[in-house]
Amino acid sequence: MTTATSNADASKVNNGVNVEALLGAREALEKAPEAAQFKWRASCEWLNGTHSRSTIEGFQGLGGEQTREKSFKVEADHPTQFASEDNAPTPVELLLSGLASCLTAGVAAVAQRRGIQLHSVKATLEGDMDLAGILGIDEDVRNGFSAIRVHFDIKADASADDIKALVAQSQKRSAAFDVITNPTNVYVTVN
Amino acid sequence: MTTATSNADASKVNNGVNVEALLGAREALEKAPEAAQFKWRASCEWLNGTHSRSTIEGFQGLGGEQTREKSFKVEADHPTQFASEDNAPTPVELLLSGLASCLTAGVAAVAQRRGIQLHSVKATLEGDMDLAGILGIDEDVRNGFSAIRVHFDIKADASADDIKALVAQSQKRSAAFDVITNPTNVYVTVN
Repeated sequence: MTTATSNADASKVNNGVNVEALLGAREALEKAPEAAQFKWRASCEWLNGTHSRSTIEGFQGLGGEQTREKSFKVEADHPTQFASEDNAPTPVELLLSGLASCLTAGVAAVAQRRGIQLHSVKATLEGDMDLAGILGIDEDVRNGFSAIRVHFDIKADASADDIKALVAQSQKRSAAFDVITNPTNVYVTVN
Repeated sequence: MTTATSNADASKVNNGVNVEALLGAREALEKAPEAAQFKWRASCEWLNGTHSRSTIEGFQGLGGEQTREKSFKVEADHPTQFASEDNAPTPVELLLSGLASCLTAGVAAVAQRRGIQLHSVKATLEGDMDLAGILGIDEDVRNGFSAIRVHFDIKADASADDIKALVAQSQKRSAAFDVITNPTNVYVTVN
């Protein structure tokens, strides 16, 4: 994990990530494992048809309830091709965005840690889905993606190999990548 | 799947979902399985630090490339507690929103199909995460959620059992629920 960099100007590298603070957090949480137990939350309100609005506010962690100065709204809907109003992305496009943003933030953080100045990072994602699953046409077809492809186009002051290694390390530590590639238990209750 | 309803006013039920169009789509795709092959997409641009912006535009399906009249932007960031700027929800909160909105849209569609008038649907989600994973403190701790709980609070012209059955059927046909509860292959390439 610790990488000696050959970049003489590593101290001038600025990807906008405060690596010292993150390393400090890691050290603190290593000593206080209960503070590393987090609960992330979202609530979702049905608007009409397939249109809904999620609200994201506080979370629990670092030994207590954490508040934010603002709350975030994330809407979802289905497209007109399914007789919906296309007010917002589909839920599965939100999943792709979550995966994309997690890997992208990871690339920036790892690059900062390794003294690599980034110039641009673009991820392009595509997820294959056979709608015979969700439409109930074929019970043998899964509802979700059969595969997701992520392509990164990165410009940085580093060799092609070092750039590939940034993405590999980001993948290795990505929460969203883990949630999507491995099974996660979801418990649903009503009223 | 076909449910006879005892609701004499089933024709007056309006949850804003065009069930006839969905049943028509199912019938059409049953006859043309290649048209049921979809590709959903997102691209993600790094802005600064852990802040990124995903763009969602067209998708492939129904036998061709599908365009939208607009494009959608979904931002993500990390909170101030991790020395970030909290410009947007975290990637994992986007995953929770995707799951919430998929199950919620499903509840509305199934209710319409079953002749049940909805009055309100609210989903509250919480995902447990031990940050010892993503911070690299403990290799035995996964990066993603150890569990997700979804609680639905639904007001509808239906019995408690019928309301529970709506959620169960939505779960059974939810793309996002499947992506999160089952493993999905993600292939990552660089430059």
